Amino acid sequence: MTRVYNFSAGPAVLPESVLKEAAEEMLDYRGTGMSVMEMSHRSAAFQAIIDEAEADLRDLMGIPENYKVLFLQGGATQQFAAIPMNLMKNGKADYIVSGGWSKKAYKEAKLYGDARLVASSEDENFTYVPSVDGMEFREDADYVYICENETVYGNKYHKLPETGDIPLVADVSSCFLSEPVDVEKYGLIYGGVQKNVGPAGVVIVIIREDLIREDVNPATPTIMRYKTQADAGSMSNTPPCYGIYICGKVFKWIKAQGGLEGMQKINQEKASLLYDYLDSTDFYQAPVRKEDRSIMNVPFVTGDAELDKKFVAQAKEAGIENIKGHRSVGGMRASIYNAMPVEGVQALVDFMKKFEAENK
Amino acid sequence: MTRVYNFSAGPAVLPESVLKEAAEEMLDYRGTGMSVMEMSHRSAAFQAIIDEAEADLRDLMGIPENYKVLFLQGGATQQFAAIPMNLMKNGKADYIVSGGWSKKAYKEAKLYGDARLVASSEDENFTYVPSVDGMEFREDADYVYICENETVYGNKYHKLPETGDIPLVADVSSCFLSEPVDVEKYGLIYGGVQKNVGPAGVVIVIIREDLIREDVNPATPTIMRYKTQADAGSMSNTPPCYGIYICGKVFKWIKAQGGLEGMQKINQEKASLLYDYLDSTDFYQAPVRKEDRSIMNVPFVTGDAELDKKFVAQAKEAGIENIKGHRSVGGMRASIYNAMPVEGVQALVDFMKKFEAENK
Repeated sequence: MTRVYNFSAGPAVLPESVLKEAAEEMLDYRGTGMSVMEMSHRSAAFQAIIDEAEADLRDLMGIPENYKVLFLQGGATQQFAAIPMNLMKNGKADYIVSGGWSKKAYKEAKLYGDARLVASSEDENFTYVPSVDGMEFREDADYVYICENETVYGNKYHKLPETGDIPLVADVSSCFLSEPVDVEKYGLIYGGVQKNVGPAGVVIVIIREDLIREDVNPATPTIMRYKTQADAGSMSNTPPCYGIYICGKVFKWIKAQGGLEGMQKINQEKASLLYDYLDSTDFYQAPVRKEDRSIMNVPFVTGDAELDKKFVAQAKEAGIENIKGHRSVGGMRASIYNAMPVEGVQALVDFMKKFEAENK
Repeated sequence: MTRVYNFSAGPAVLPESVLKEAAEEMLDYRGTGMSVMEMSHRSAAFQAIIDEAEADLRDLMGIPENYKVLFLQGGATQQFAAIPMNLMKNGKADYIVSGGWSKKAYKEAKLYGDARLVASSEDENFTYVPSVDGMEFREDADYVYICENETVYGNKYHKLPETGDIPLVADVSSCFLSEPVDVEKYGLIYGGVQKNVGPAGVVIVIIREDLIREDVNPATPTIMRYKTQADAGSMSNTPPCYGIYICGKVFKWIKAQGGLEGMQKINQEKASLLYDYLDSTDFYQAPVRKEDRSIMNVPFVTGDAELDKKFVAQAKEAGIENIKGHRSVGGMRASIYNAMPVEGVQALVDFMKKFEAENK
């Protein structure tokens, strides 16, 4: 068995120890005589799995008592609809667009009410995050929406917008659990887990209790109502049990890395390895403004589409997988999520140096 | 490692060979150097997995060319909303209620239009399926809805309603791939996979192309639109990749059992073992009318709640798990899905005989 260095933007690399444990428990989860995949979601064994996952996540993120944690299906994309359906009371929401995901969320919100575009960085192909200094929001907006880390473009809010009493809603899919977070700054934080936390098919929603209402948009499907799922402990219907189980293992792995502080330190080390090299050479360019750089997704180009293609092909031969940039940006993108080891980033930088020497 | 006989109604037992393969491939799927959980859904390797799963399912069920196969999230429960949102054109649908699941679907449909109750068997606690002989539907109904096998109550349509030009929509979650099926009799067949096909978190929708429309209920979330998902090959957003991969393995396992004909033969053998014994004794009662019995879910009672409780406890000690009936029926329920071996049903019958002898 040879493991590659997998720089996929998502689904993405998972900790090897988590996969090993999952493989070992596949036919018999801790003496239950069955796989977690075969387990009734109403069983004591599964209840313990989901309870422990929630407790570990609360511990890691310091989630206050007055926030609910929901393990749902449909991915972040389904939340693009669920959020306006559940949170629009005045029918108004303010969106900041800093990439493809926030743009999609904004477009979806328009199906359900008056979604206003506060600011966008599309004018420069999302190579920066709109400045939040002095940014103003409608007083009666039901929420302000951001995508905190844009996976495709590789930008990140390093300062959150000041929204006062208006709840801040953030899609954190591609920076989930990558650094410490102050949950109280948000009304709702959510993320698809398939980047930093687990396998595709689970989205985690962390929501302040006062935002969970009965009088949602009447067209909201019952299981998309936060009230339904909060009351049912995420089990209004059968949850994505196996995915939740894997997430739980990843939470424990993050704890073993020193929690979110420890994770941040490792992530910054990895990002510095890559950005420092990118900044030291003219051969590659990193298009995102320095102050808005993501430490999770790092796009870069040579400026020559043919050379980029050659890079991707030769990198693959060297065991560096999924390094191709998204079609809307081109070039390369290294997604260096929590589970990417430092050695993987070092191998990438070594390859980049070699490629530069050979193709300068 | 000791495997138990798991009679759970869902999530439920999976073929042991499938779990073994999944465990073996967990860290390195066929030389890719990564787990299927870590694989980009846009990769060639995952595209091959989903394509092969669809091809095998089409082959097993004989799905005609003019039907689309969608692998979605949210379970059958989400389809309770998606179906009326997508299919209601005249705003009318006719529902037959034969248990808890069809009742929930009927209730959800009322959020989106004029859902009419054609018939219900709730008067006798769903111990039968309403007779479809001479049943009449509204000419301008957009569809007629049934739940073909009710998991909780253990009843099954052995004859489908004649709906003429009105599309028949069927929830087959708990009888999926248990016997041959004539897809052309339906406009839409769907099922959560966590009973007969795979792990929770995937729902499969098989829909006739002419029912896939653009002009759906305007409140339909984009990813819940069949058009969106059909056009995107179920990948409008990241699909539940790992679950689809396991489903694919189960399809191959069913093929190895002789396809749906072979599966039916084995399932009938298992069901006969259990029903024949139930019919031979007065100690246990099977509440469902003989002509409407499910061959997947077999509820039975002793008629004494305390004795039922004792049965469940002693069965567990004998390696017979999850035999407790649903709270709305009480007693016991044996879910004997495809992956339950004949030996498991034999072990259950042996235990029942022993328990009868000891407690008569």
